[in-house]
Amino acid sequence: MTMIVNNVIRLLTLMTLIFPLIGHASEHPRLILTKDGVDTIRKNLGQVPLFDASVERVKEAVDAEIALGIDTPIPRDYSGGYTHERHKRNFRTAQQAGALFQILQDEKYARYVRDMLFQYEAMYKDLPVHPKERSYARGKLFWQCLNDSNWLVFMAQAYDAIYTWLSERERQQLNRNLFRPFADFISLQNPKFYNRVHNHSTWGNAAVGMIGLVMNDEELIARALYGIADDGLEAGLKDDDGGFIKVEGQKAGFLANLEEPFSPDGYYTEGPYYQRYAMYPFLIFAIAMHNARPEMKVFEHKDGVLLKAVDALLNLTDADGEFFPLNDGQKGMSYHSGSLVTAVDIAYHYGNRNPQLLSIAHTQNQVLLDQAGLQVAMDIRDGKTQPFLKQSVNLTDGPDGTQGGVGVLRYGDEDLSLVFKYAAQGLSHGHYDKLSYSLYDKGDEVIQDYGLTRFVNIEQKGGGNYLKENKTWAKQTIAHNTLTLNQASHFNGDYATGSQHHSELHFFDASRSDVQVLSARETNAYPGTEMHRTMAMIKSPTFEKPFVLDIMKVVSGTRNEYDLPLYFMGQVMKTNFAYQSPPSLNPLGNKNGYQHLYLEAKGYPASETTQLSWLNQGKFYTLTSSTSTTDELLFARLGANDPDFNLRRDAALIIRRRDTGNTVFASAIEPHGSYSPVSELSVNSSSNISNLKVMADNSDYTAVAIEDRKKQLSVFIVANKDVSASKRHKLKIGQQLYRWKGPYHFAIEE
Amino acid sequence: MTMIVNNVIRLLTLMTLIFPLIGHASEHPRLILTKDGVDTIRKNLGQVPLFDASVERVKEAVDAEIALGIDTPIPRDYSGGYTHERHKRNFRTAQQAGALFQILQDEKYARYVRDMLFQYEAMYKDLPVHPKERSYARGKLFWQCLNDSNWLVFMAQAYDAIYTWLSERERQQLNRNLFRPFADFISLQNPKFYNRVHNHSTWGNAAVGMIGLVMNDEELIARALYGIADDGLEAGLKDDDGGFIKVEGQKAGFLANLEEPFSPDGYYTEGPYYQRYAMYPFLIFAIAMHNARPEMKVFEHKDGVLLKAVDALLNLTDADGEFFPLNDGQKGMSYHSGSLVTAVDIAYHYGNRNPQLLSIAHTQNQVLLDQAGLQVAMDIRDGKTQPFLKQSVNLTDGPDGTQGGVGVLRYGDEDLSLVFKYAAQGLSHGHYDKLSYSLYDKGDEVIQDYGLTRFVNIEQKGGGNYLKENKTWAKQTIAHNTLTLNQASHFNGDYATGSQHHSELHFFDASRSDVQVLSARETNAYPGTEMHRTMAMIKSPTFEKPFVLDIMKVVSGTRNEYDLPLYFMGQVMKTNFAYQSPPSLNPLGNKNGYQHLYLEAKGYPASETTQLSWLNQGKFYTLTSSTSTTDELLFARLGANDPDFNLRRDAALIIRRRDTGNTVFASAIEPHGSYSPVSELSVNSSSNISNLKVMADNSDYTAVAIEDRKKQLSVFIVANKDVSASKRHKLKIGQQLYRWKGPYHFAIEE
Repeated sequence: MTMIVNNVIRLLTLMTLIFPLIGHASEHPRLILTKDGVDTIRKNLGQVPLFDASVERVKEAVDAEIALGIDTPIPRDYSGGYTHERHKRNFRTAQQAGALFQILQDEKYARYVRDMLFQYEAMYKDLPVHPKERSYARGKLFWQCLNDSNWLVFMAQAYDAIYTWLSERERQQLNRNLFRPFADFISLQNPKFYNRVHNHSTWGNAAVGMIGLVMNDEELIARALYGIADDGLEAGLKDDDGGFIKVEGQKAGFLANLEEPFSPDGYYTEGPYYQRYAMYPFLIFAIAMHNARPEMKVFEHKDGVLLKAVDALLNLTDADGEFFPLNDGQKGMSYHSGSLVTAVDIAYHYGNRNPQLLSIAHTQNQVLLDQAGLQVAMDIRDGKTQPFLKQSVNLTDGPDGTQGGVGVLRYGDEDLSLVFKYAAQGLSHGHYDKLSYSLYDKGDEVIQDYGLTRFVNIEQKGGGNYLKENKTWAKQTIAHNTLTLNQASHFNGDYATGSQHHSELHFFDASRSDVQVLSARETNAYPGTEMHRTMAMIKSPTFEKPFVLDIMKVVSGTRNEYDLPLYFMGQVMKTNFAYQSPPSLNPLGNKNGYQHLYLEAKGYPASETTQLSWLNQGKFYTLTSSTSTTDELLFARLGANDPDFNLRRDAALIIRRRDTGNTVFASAIEPHGSYSPVSELSVNSSSNISNLKVMADNSDYTAVAIEDRKKQLSVFIVANKDVSASKRHKLKIGQQLYRWKGPYHFAIEE
Repeated sequence: MTMIVNNVIRLLTLMTLIFPLIGHASEHPRLILTKDGVDTIRKNLGQVPLFDASVERVKEAVDAEIALGIDTPIPRDYSGGYTHERHKRNFRTAQQAGALFQILQDEKYARYVRDMLFQYEAMYKDLPVHPKERSYARGKLFWQCLNDSNWLVFMAQAYDAIYTWLSERERQQLNRNLFRPFADFISLQNPKFYNRVHNHSTWGNAAVGMIGLVMNDEELIARALYGIADDGLEAGLKDDDGGFIKVEGQKAGFLANLEEPFSPDGYYTEGPYYQRYAMYPFLIFAIAMHNARPEMKVFEHKDGVLLKAVDALLNLTDADGEFFPLNDGQKGMSYHSGSLVTAVDIAYHYGNRNPQLLSIAHTQNQVLLDQAGLQVAMDIRDGKTQPFLKQSVNLTDGPDGTQGGVGVLRYGDEDLSLVFKYAAQGLSHGHYDKLSYSLYDKGDEVIQDYGLTRFVNIEQKGGGNYLKENKTWAKQTIAHNTLTLNQASHFNGDYATGSQHHSELHFFDASRSDVQVLSARETNAYPGTEMHRTMAMIKSPTFEKPFVLDIMKVVSGTRNEYDLPLYFMGQVMKTNFAYQSPPSLNPLGNKNGYQHLYLEAKGYPASETTQLSWLNQGKFYTLTSSTSTTDELLFARLGANDPDFNLRRDAALIIRRRDTGNTVFASAIEPHGSYSPVSELSVNSSSNISNLKVMADNSDYTAVAIEDRKKQLSVFIVANKDVSASKRHKLKIGQQLYRWKGPYHFAIEE
């Protein structure tokens, strides 16, 4: 750049400082930060501790990057590799530098963004598609268009922040050579990526829309909102993951993406891990629209679903704030992630200022450098914070909320949390796990959902991408705590079939604090067989801690082999049955996930009540299950046919019932006692249950009796048909007549 | 008890309050609390926050027990069972109630102790030995004399606290029917238990001595200090664990136990887990002697070894305060345990008031209810606390400090801690693990020592006792990070042979902060073969983090099969060699621990430098090892022949070198980078080492070269003979002449 241009820039900057542009809609910044917002922020600088600390932290990071110099290497690597990580850091730093420029009005940040943008401008014109060939939609800076879209979502914000500061000529140059071609590449030239209902497309739509808003490019804005009218794609086309790219009659664009994957309750059909990822472009583009096109009322779209989605997402976490790994989800991801800082701050500021959100912002310990972040930080400063109390929730799935759902039963201060999934397929990241569940004790997994088989961004593990075991193991039914028939996955593991169906809620009742029940049915996973699972979280006065009752009722016209696994976490303490370990370990089967499980031991029930106790994280747990003496009890260990050590060596107990038609699997999972390796004190290490049996089972009712060590009998009866709250029921079992109102009965016998 | 007696007691109590007995040696309390001590404590009540809080916490616990009522059930159970845990809680509560009586002068505590003692008195007279038959020395209240001794050590304190408050008649009754028979039973009637050098005996000696001091029974005091003169035991007798009960010419009693197992540095030959356990009776009886028989100068015995031992013990912990599980040691035990509260408070008060100890007391968040605890709490209140800084230490083993030792090399604030064991056998809790090591990153294990195979006090797991896999697995050489020859354990796993030998220090040099070296030799584990291991912790400017260099030099007159395992913790990320997984998993061998390892995969080095990278707790690590292409690389998984699920499913990489005589195994273990599942950012996930090779090896010198990714060469040379600090060495390798002074050379080549 010549000295003359530099001087012109200096002059323009000076003019900007002397004659601030105030208050008309065509001003910049206009996306996330606004002119008014910046004024308010600047007035409050130094007076809002959390905001000031967030500015300071970002400033430190950006200053360090500025000191390091700008590098825009020729793209070469998968995620985890240098060029990938460098470009990723570039766009994040540029976005932050833009915000700092607005907030601190220090031109070094504007210069940094400008210089970086021009390096990209110089490079982009002649840049071929990325050399790595794995993606169905290769990007240019990155191996997939998805990451290119990430880049544009962030860079649009950086650009917006320095837009006014740049010369008209510079803007034209960037628009013409970098941003417009970039937007066209990820959309027009990649319709498979851009024009579908999928979290990838949301990023694409937001990226195109945001740069469109900065450039005032109505064509791009329309393309972002409504997609590409004629994309030339054939219906039925699938992506690398087996997900549908084109479904007949389906709309595309940002609004369609907002419409389709979110249920009215704000549950995102791919699950919380991808919801967390998708929330960022949804929310950031929504704010941009809110600021630049308020007449579109994006936040009010679909009855305010975007802000409900934040609430749903926060409720799909364990006590440590980690998301339940439903469908493809990497464990450990939590509401401490940056995208949740965005979500919480936005939900607070643009929503109804729920003071409970402030406690999450407080633990996040950082806020956005914008009006929303400022508001959160000010209200925390002003003592408005209230604890975030997670309740039992039942979230519907499907655009209209009619495609099943996900429920979470909680007791106490998340002392016990049961996650029960009876949802739709969940698009391409869905697992074949109808009526599956997982169980948490505070932040510890007691009965785990495996999650995904991927090491996100760790290049050594398959470039940081999905590993083949994600399909051969993690998605399969046997990898989940639900019923597998005849060693085949639900829908035979066929994505197209699975995508046509969903489970059905039978009822959800959390009206009592001591008994909470969720009951759902699945009739399509195995044609001709109905699975009906009722799960109750019960805090009985006869038990030390709350326990879970699990009733899986199966009605089938054929005789089947049933496998019901329990992925317990921890060390086996005791069983009430004998088992034998084979001299060699062999896989349990050769397909549908069974090829990854070793049979470690095999036994048979010693009585009609089978028990397994284990110890995990200093607490004891016992499974008590009603079994027949012809059942097989299989101890399985994950890790077979795992040539690259991609799988964890986790354990399961599988209850196998052969050659059976109708049946009921009834079990209790009971936390009890504690052990400390410091005090070496073992407290209440034995189960309180002496007997658990199915007392009655027919098309109207299923009844389970639990006898405790003191011979007290508790009876739980679920109504299999009419579950209205006002319905009166009676059932005679033996000499005893039970009468109750509503969908279930639970009582301790006199 | 009659009303008259009660009234007499009340009268006596009143007299005690009116005419306090001051200052003559025959007063009570006299063991731990003293009359003067109680006065000082009472004067300071309400003014010392940590002490007051400790009183309050103990008071709450004791009040709850008092409300529950006293139960002294007929003994029946192993540890973990009700009667065991009840009697254990009784003696702890009684000891606390006694202290509360002295401190708060509330008679309800005295009554509680008295009533409990009389319940025991009524029961003890006719009590047979405990019905459980597993122990070599069965107790009466507990299944082993050891626990009976625990009872007496605590009850002696409780008794001492209310001694003056009791009537003479009550005292006589207790002495005659309970305490003297109890003391005689655990000593005279159980010489195998009482009259040896072992932590069990220490408890027995302390128990007899403490009750002797309370009762002023000189015979018991002498028996405690010097043992039983004629025990009638034959030399060579062994206990259940294979430990020697009687060694020809060995003394017995408390002083012998103080003499034998502690080295002059305060290292306890059984290892830190048992040291922690043994410290309590050592220290508590030492204070009792200090208070009641000051002329014996127990604290000054063996150059103040008891207080040095506390320091040694605190240094044998990781960054979380957990003890390194050398020999038999249950993981998770830490300086937060009650016996370490005792140790730290006593070491502070009776030692040189090291202000660093206060920071440990602070994290323990409780103090003893005696003079020592008060002093600690007052000094914390007065701001005297300093951080406890753990240094690299080399602790000798053996009564004279001539039987090898244990070294800990540390870098930074425990960023990396290497534990290198070259000690004696360690009595019956010793493992066959000469020259073994483990590695910690802060509080996380990177390369683990397996520890023991036992679930202490968990009744479901073998009564809470040692499991058979402790012998078949945990003690065996292959279970450790050291060299196994020809699939046989050191000393062929023979305890008698192992007990005759120890490794020898070659040198320890932690004089530089950037290079610390420990080198030791073992010549007896495999007759005819010398193993010489040199381990260095190096912080080189060319590496992000400190790394460990491990040189195992073997000189052997025969050709052997060498197995060098690496028990890495975490998930395999990458190897630079190919490997094949077998279709079925089979044990690696049929004895000496090999029967418990499955072969999960097998490969061969692809080059002369073999690498394995793994991820653990968000950090990457890489092993880089110089290998020959005829070496075998075995991935092993623990868990074979484990019919009761007693073993963890941990992983190892074993480098197997067949048919070899002299050889060198040279490896680097290199921590690098990080990964966060929240940011999903993978930083520096690849090793910085491109090549590692043995440049020279002869009887004088062994040299290893490390080439990093930037082609910089670092050379480490160890002198195998003269290691004096002043000795000048030179060595020519190829064209390069190396000159240095002292036992090793380390430099980055120009």
